[in-house]
Amino acid sequence: MIILDTPIDMHLHLREGQILKDVLPFSQKQFAAAVIMPNLIPPVDNKERLRNYKEEILENSQDFTPLMNLFMREYSKEELSELKNEIFGIKLYPAGITTNSQNGVKSIENIYPVLEIMSELNIPLSVHGETNGFVLDREREFKSVYEKIAKDFPKLKIIMEHIGTADLLDLLDKYENLYATITLHHLLLTLDEVAGGMLNPHYFCKPILKTPKDKDAIQSFVKKGHKKVMFGSDSAPHTIKNKLKGAAGIFSAPVILPALAEFFGDDIDTFQKFISNNARENFNINVPKKEVRLIQKEWQAPYLVGEIKPMFAGKKFKFMVE
Amino acid sequence: MIILDTPIDMHLHLREGQILKDVLPFSQKQFAAAVIMPNLIPPVDNKERLRNYKEEILENSQDFTPLMNLFMREYSKEELSELKNEIFGIKLYPAGITTNSQNGVKSIENIYPVLEIMSELNIPLSVHGETNGFVLDREREFKSVYEKIAKDFPKLKIIMEHIGTADLLDLLDKYENLYATITLHHLLLTLDEVAGGMLNPHYFCKPILKTPKDKDAIQSFVKKGHKKVMFGSDSAPHTIKNKLKGAAGIFSAPVILPALAEFFGDDIDTFQKFISNNARENFNINVPKKEVRLIQKEWQAPYLVGEIKPMFAGKKFKFMVE
Repeated sequence: MIILDTPIDMHLHLREGQILKDVLPFSQKQFAAAVIMPNLIPPVDNKERLRNYKEEILENSQDFTPLMNLFMREYSKEELSELKNEIFGIKLYPAGITTNSQNGVKSIENIYPVLEIMSELNIPLSVHGETNGFVLDREREFKSVYEKIAKDFPKLKIIMEHIGTADLLDLLDKYENLYATITLHHLLLTLDEVAGGMLNPHYFCKPILKTPKDKDAIQSFVKKGHKKVMFGSDSAPHTIKNKLKGAAGIFSAPVILPALAEFFGDDIDTFQKFISNNARENFNINVPKKEVRLIQKEWQAPYLVGEIKPMFAGKKFKFMVE
Repeated sequence: MIILDTPIDMHLHLREGQILKDVLPFSQKQFAAAVIMPNLIPPVDNKERLRNYKEEILENSQDFTPLMNLFMREYSKEELSELKNEIFGIKLYPAGITTNSQNGVKSIENIYPVLEIMSELNIPLSVHGETNGFVLDREREFKSVYEKIAKDFPKLKIIMEHIGTADLLDLLDKYENLYATITLHHLLLTLDEVAGGMLNPHYFCKPILKTPKDKDAIQSFVKKGHKKVMFGSDSAPHTIKNKLKGAAGIFSAPVILPALAEFFGDDIDTFQKFISNNARENFNINVPKKEVRLIQKEWQAPYLVGEIKPMFAGKKFKFMVE
């Protein structure tokens, strides 16, 4: 048996309404808390929307702490001072780069005043780091933006979300204030899952899955237990109907801990740090303690959750969440 | 007006039955002849199937010469001697690598006796050159196979079909007996069309569309008018229903000459060589002369052909095939 102490998913999409009801139980079962992404329509970018959304999550779960993220816009100091204790951070999406990011940021300089306020108030910045360039180069091309923000706001804690390219990893040691989340799918898969055989829309996501070289570099980094690397699933449910229309996102929530248990094998210590301690220590996250147990029993991932097809649908795992 | 003399499509999929009836008029209108691919179910790999398939094409067209390809298997010298004058060449698919290639070749050495016979009888070899490796590396990894066959059979004319990677281009000058076809889509597009925005199955093909660097290298090579580079559309119709299930292939036939006319601009001489002369001279192709005229008149590509969505559906072009 593996016992995990207070697992935290540092990047989670729950959506709203029926989808939220369908997907939330999987995160609640495996995690004590999760950072909840705000790219809804309309975006979660004001007090009322924030409080209502948090309430919806709390009404549909127990023993689970939603750490709320606001959608980036030009917030005033008064707004952020008032909301500071109700949020984890603010999420920056470059405009048009992924699901519901039409209202995202068109130029980083536009939000420099907000970053200044966040830095003062000690509010972390989450970043979807992609340019509008060629799909395989977008993360690498965004590297200079990460460096610029890191240098211009040395006291601002910045999370490079769902990194999928080997090129970003060295930034973690170069800048004290840069952190990273890594998803299950970027840790385990490559573009072959999407386009290696027949085209498979269920493994299409942004940033797109990349090469074996990228995957190997990320795996080796995670196995070394780097303190600034944290698990963030980016579990992003879309109905099968919308996936067939080309929507980007992988719904990994049901299989996270069983898949990670196989990935880490005997190294429970690194598993524990990756899934919880690094996040708690890097960001002083205080949530109620919750023990999650994985028992060694064959378990099969569901084929369907509501109208959503999960990652690794139907796959058999050696561990089951108790 | 642009007048093209006897255009030849060196790589065309016509399928059978209703699809053939739907797609063939576009090739007939723009080309004097085309090399017809044999990956049907069952494959075109015997005398009867070859003759019936050729008959079906002739019954559904006029002023159009189908240059038939056989599907690679272990043919005897007697078989090939008998069929030599009825075929253009033999197509080699590594097993499982693209549409209907399950019966393809598992190991190149298995067909060395056939390559020996082809070399003696002066029958060209067409190759879908991909390994079973990571999807973006498959063509590059196949390079050594091309080199091996080229060296082992110096008198065998070998066509590297639909090359989409910059890494193969230098082989054309290195080996006298290697030739290449280039498709419209590998000439003009990158992986961004498939995965840059929403996932777009209509631009999914094998070999997969690659990077801007690959596209630029191919464009520059084609613009230089290299004699061993020939146009081969690899136009590969699938119904929308099958595309949504992940089938690989782009149906480019309706838009080929209008799109190439814009690509070549004023350089009609290189256009003519790429679309006809290089193929005729490299392979001594003798088909009835046919003039194809492109007039300068706005023309819009069809949105739908039967149950098939064409490449550049709905796009407006400056040239129209008369």
